[in-house]
Amino acid sequence: MQIQDALAELSTLLGQRLTRSKSDLELHGRSETYFPLTPPDAVAYPETTAEVAELVRICARHRVPVVGWGTGTSLEGQAQAVQGGIVVDFARMNKLIEVRQGDMDVTVQPGLTREELNEELRATGLFFPVDPGANASLGGMAMTRASGTTAVRYGTMRDNVMGLEVVLADGRIIRTGSRARKSSAGYDLTGLMVGSEGTLGLVTELTLKLHGQPEAITAAICAFDTVDDAVHAVIDTIQMGLAMARIELLDTETVKAFNAYAGAEMPECPHLMVEFHGSKTGVAEMAETFSDIITDHDGHGFNWATKPEDRHALWTMRHNGAYAIYAARPGWKSLVTDVCVPISRLADAVNETAADLAASGLFGPILGHVGDGNFHSVIMFDAEDKAQFTRVKEASNRMVERALAMGGTVTGEHGIGMGKLNYMTSEHGDGWQVMGAIKQALDPLNIMNPGKMVPPRN
Amino acid sequence: MQIQDALAELSTLLGQRLTRSKSDLELHGRSETYFPLTPPDAVAYPETTAEVAELVRICARHRVPVVGWGTGTSLEGQAQAVQGGIVVDFARMNKLIEVRQGDMDVTVQPGLTREELNEELRATGLFFPVDPGANASLGGMAMTRASGTTAVRYGTMRDNVMGLEVVLADGRIIRTGSRARKSSAGYDLTGLMVGSEGTLGLVTELTLKLHGQPEAITAAICAFDTVDDAVHAVIDTIQMGLAMARIELLDTETVKAFNAYAGAEMPECPHLMVEFHGSKTGVAEMAETFSDIITDHDGHGFNWATKPEDRHALWTMRHNGAYAIYAARPGWKSLVTDVCVPISRLADAVNETAADLAASGLFGPILGHVGDGNFHSVIMFDAEDKAQFTRVKEASNRMVERALAMGGTVTGEHGIGMGKLNYMTSEHGDGWQVMGAIKQALDPLNIMNPGKMVPPRN
Ligand SMILES: Cc1cc2nc3c(=O)[nH]c(=O)nc-3n(C[C@H](O)[C@H](O)[C@H](O)COP(=O)(O)OP(=O)(O)OC[C@H]3O[C@@H](n4cnc5c(N)ncnc54)[C@H](O)[C@@H]3O)c2cc1C
Ligand SMILES: Cc1cc2nc3c(=O)[nH]c(=O)nc-3n(C[C@H](O)[C@H](O)[C@H](O)COP(=O)(O)OP(=O)(O)OC[C@H]3O[C@@H](n4cnc5c(N)ncnc54)[C@H](O)[C@@H]3O)c2cc1C
Repeated sequence: MQIQDALAELSTLLGQRLTRSKSDLELHGRSETYFPLTPPDAVAYPETTAEVAELVRICARHRVPVVGWGTGTSLEGQAQAVQGGIVVDFARMNKLIEVRQGDMDVTVQPGLTREELNEELRATGLFFPVDPGANASLGGMAMTRASGTTAVRYGTMRDNVMGLEVVLADGRIIRTGSRARKSSAGYDLTGLMVGSEGTLGLVTELTLKLHGQPEAITAAICAFDTVDDAVHAVIDTIQMGLAMARIELLDTETVKAFNAYAGAEMPECPHLMVEFHGSKTGVAEMAETFSDIITDHDGHGFNWATKPEDRHALWTMRHNGAYAIYAARPGWKSLVTDVCVPISRLADAVNETAADLAASGLFGPILGHVGDGNFHSVIMFDAEDKAQFTRVKEASNRMVERALAMGGTVTGEHGIGMGKLNYMTSEHGDGWQVMGAIKQALDPLNIMNPGKMVPPRN
Repeated sequence: MQIQDALAELSTLLGQRLTRSKSDLELHGRSETYFPLTPPDAVAYPETTAEVAELVRICARHRVPVVGWGTGTSLEGQAQAVQGGIVVDFARMNKLIEVRQGDMDVTVQPGLTREELNEELRATGLFFPVDPGANASLGGMAMTRASGTTAVRYGTMRDNVMGLEVVLADGRIIRTGSRARKSSAGYDLTGLMVGSEGTLGLVTELTLKLHGQPEAITAAICAFDTVDDAVHAVIDTIQMGLAMARIELLDTETVKAFNAYAGAEMPECPHLMVEFHGSKTGVAEMAETFSDIITDHDGHGFNWATKPEDRHALWTMRHNGAYAIYAARPGWKSLVTDVCVPISRLADAVNETAADLAASGLFGPILGHVGDGNFHSVIMFDAEDKAQFTRVKEASNRMVERALAMGGTVTGEHGIGMGKLNYMTSEHGDGWQVMGAIKQALDPLNIMNPGKMVPPRN
């Protein structure tokens, strides 16, 4: 790596938009969770695809790592330049390029955030559904294969990215996918890029599916005596094929955290938050069926939010879930787990996790997108307490092993980054070597977010 | 290629299940359409994954091509061993391994056909929706990224394959995906394999999503004065977000072919065939909205099929579409086109295609899964008439170029095989080279279905 030569050339290319200020390096060296600070050598703010391509060519020539950065909210240290090099912050590439109402799709630059996109779409009657808790960038969301509360109905980034413009590791620019709704024209490069965490190229443009604003929306929250009751209600709902738009679990600790953080006044017991989208009669019908299921599982305190502002309050609270939990242990750090299991195993997975955390003496409220079988425990720890952190890591390991034994995955939506690299062999076996072979083929110099995703090179 | 040595070793491995009979070689050298016969050197009928792995290792050692075979119904010559070698027919690996009703998924061997699967699922209340016209194998369907009449609601094979067992080009066995409904754990190898036409490995097991049999189903057929009216009705339907389960276009020539082939008595004008799935009230509501749309576009002769046997007759007729058209020109051959465009361009694409075929003096009835923007012209020609075939190829070229200019794809569902290789650069630019690099990384000896999908090697 000839970093000085690269920096000189990059300065010529980008001028003030290449920064080396301490504050900027630190801002782009941090993670949302427990990973240590790893400031890059410089932060670049490109404005065009051509600039990104030239930047990558310069870095390739000098063997300098290139790491994309959206809003830096990923939870496994994905955006950290662990081998130094250039962090490419897409903040200045944040335009909505074109909405095509008739085709219900949109083309955007990667730095646009999901909330900004929906703001711009408001007048069109269309919306983009994928909603991680953070107001993440669409490029970052594609790269972690993000999802959120609505994936149970609208899918994840895998399902909603139609095409990409990608700058490859040698500076070539390709376009993957098309604006057709389906295609059998060759290997699915869009699908290969989505979830690749910037290890195969930098995304400079995305074409996304949009969805029509439903005619009617109803949301509700309801309480249960036990997590087990709540989870079995979820299982019944899914197995009956009820087209939930959202179905979220909060355990008692999470509810307590909400009450403290958001001034909510929920009874201190497990809850489900749900939402239905459809026609007026369709939504009413679903709500009725759902009420019956709830009753079967001793649900109570059923509370409907039909007014937009009530619904908004409900989901804002949910999206602040992690922050509410952080606030319950001021000054502590968090490890956010993220397993996903077949729905028939969900109750076991949640119960065993809760029991394990309790037995380990850890504070790890559980919440999740349970309609997909996906849930998190936000395990808090005192960074000074090394022994406690070891217990946290061990509990997190057991959670992952349990998920794998149940036919699930080590990460439903947060991705691999640094935190989950150790599980890749357990989940994929020789498949992980195949990922390494693909990486080697597309990035032979190993400059795209090195140290992530694939087996280390010798 | 040391074919004799390979054949000797394969005979030892498979005994009678390696055949070289002329009839078997010819049966596995043909295609459904216009490609010349290319008999392989032998046909293998493995019964286990271990046998498939050993077979591939033998072929790798002797540099002998290996080409998978499901039911041989693919339309672009995908399953033909154009460079000789071994065709691996999965007919004996056709078991349903396990249905998990609670998780709404199923694991099958690749040789099981879609109709056999649905037959076995009948008692479960679940079904597998993807339905190419042919009773294709699930392995072959995964490999061409097949879809059919229900993709508009349930997605294509891309959306319905959760995981695969794959024998790689060096005989290693990997499992891709998991039974979790979503995952962010690394590159999407399942997605990479789906649509790869056997060029990256042989599929020996598939885990598929199942769907609940809807409470209510209603189908209908209705007539229009012009294709333009029919297509605009489709566009309105999609843009209104009406959750159609099926919406199929037949032009006048196709209707005439149906009348002749199936003894139908449809008025000789363009038709739409539609189906709604949902609750009783949901289906009624959709049907009403749809009726309004039809009326707006001068639709008439609206005919509802609510009884299962009427619906069955309707869709059997549709699935026999290609055969009805073949029967209209006995002894002729067919070239089946397969473009897919953004829905806003669908009317233009269909109209321009019809005008072009008429101007070229060709018989090419149009039909298609128009809810996805996907349609086919089955262009018939007399194999003796070279000049006519040239006109067919030219019309097909123009259809493809038109689709690309509209932001669409050269193949919505049939795949690349031999027939569409020439368009890969136009559709993907340097992306095609990326596909070549992936192929090279996973199959360095180029033994998996060589001559297909990727740029030729030097
Ligand atoms: C409070 C909170 C709640 C969350 N809830 C959820 C949730 O419900 N669901 C969920 O899925 N996630 C959730 N997350 C995690 C996070 O929001 C997602 O991982 C999100 O997708 C990250 O987007 P980002 O823009 O912040 O990406 P970053 O963190 O900046 O980057 C993510 C990865 O993508 C790469 N990258 C970024 N942009 C590009 C580009 N243009 N080209 C190439 N590579 C690029 C980076 O190098 C990195 O590897 C949550 C996070 C927080 C803090
Ligand atoms: C009348 C008719 C109507 C049709 N309608 C449609 C339609 O509506 N939609 C649609 O998508 N298609 C349609 N098709 C095309 C065809 O049915 C599909 O392409 C189907 O997916 C092919 O499946 P198959 O089992 O016949 O595969 P094959 O033709 O046997 O093989 C297809 C490809 O997969 C490979 N392959 C097969 N099995 C394996 C395996 N186990 N491992 C690795 N590679 C393997 C082969 O080498 C080949 O490359 C139609 C065909 C006909 C004849």
